[in-house]
Amino acid sequence: MCVFCKIVAGEIPAYKVYEDEKVLAFLDIKPVHPGHILVIPKQHVATLEAVSPETLQALILIVKKLGGALKEKMNYEGYNVCLNNDPVANQEIPHLHFHIIPRVSGDGLKGWPQQEYAAGEAEEILNKLKR
Amino acid sequence: MCVFCKIVAGEIPAYKVYEDEKVLAFLDIKPVHPGHILVIPKQHVATLEAVSPETLQALILIVKKLGGALKEKMNYEGYNVCLNNDPVANQEIPHLHFHIIPRVSGDGLKGWPQQEYAAGEAEEILNKLKR
Repeated sequence: MCVFCKIVAGEIPAYKVYEDEKVLAFLDIKPVHPGHILVIPKQHVATLEAVSPETLQALILIVKKLGGALKEKMNYEGYNVCLNNDPVANQEIPHLHFHIIPRVSGDGLKGWPQQEYAAGEAEEILNKLKR
Repeated sequence: MCVFCKIVAGEIPAYKVYEDEKVLAFLDIKPVHPGHILVIPKQHVATLEAVSPETLQALILIVKKLGGALKEKMNYEGYNVCLNNDPVANQEIPHLHFHIIPRVSGDGLKGWPQQEYAAGEAEEILNKLKR
């Protein structure tokens, strides 16, 4: 049983922020900033491709609700929602989870470096994706 | 009119990957890796708090679909889904958008530093959020 399934089963304690039939949300115990929340489906599923549309839609509404709560109740001015999908994308626990990371002005946290496409490269990608 | 509304209106060209009544997806012209996609609501809305539940649910299903396409059609092994919500969270265009960032083994892209809570701090946050 994965660590998040153990939290769902009550075998490991967690600071639960929200719970319903399908969804559980709790504090990340190693927050980027205090109030950093994880939102997970109760049923074990590893990736976005594997989750059912209904469960995914339930999850994202709770992400919306809790993001708003970070602003309203903790006075944060914004947050990032991040889903690391698969080990190559830094997914550490193989149970789908959205991070909601509250942000603080001047915290210096940056996105990843971005490049420009070479001539013709974007067209080629578009052809692959639309095939 | 914001730059994404101009793309929706056809006033600025874009490499469109997907389009329906509510949702538009196109290539980020400055990708972290080739195939980096932005998924937006056609109607202008700045933040997750402001978007309607119905539109948000439509958006996340397209994120799921296109994330799968990056793996199936471009052979990526994973991706990150990121929503930068508000300027403090690095939101550059004030029109809600999900990034889908395909990842490459060994690309060295890392998440942000995480800390542990001081004793009692997590309980205090839980009280605020559940109030």
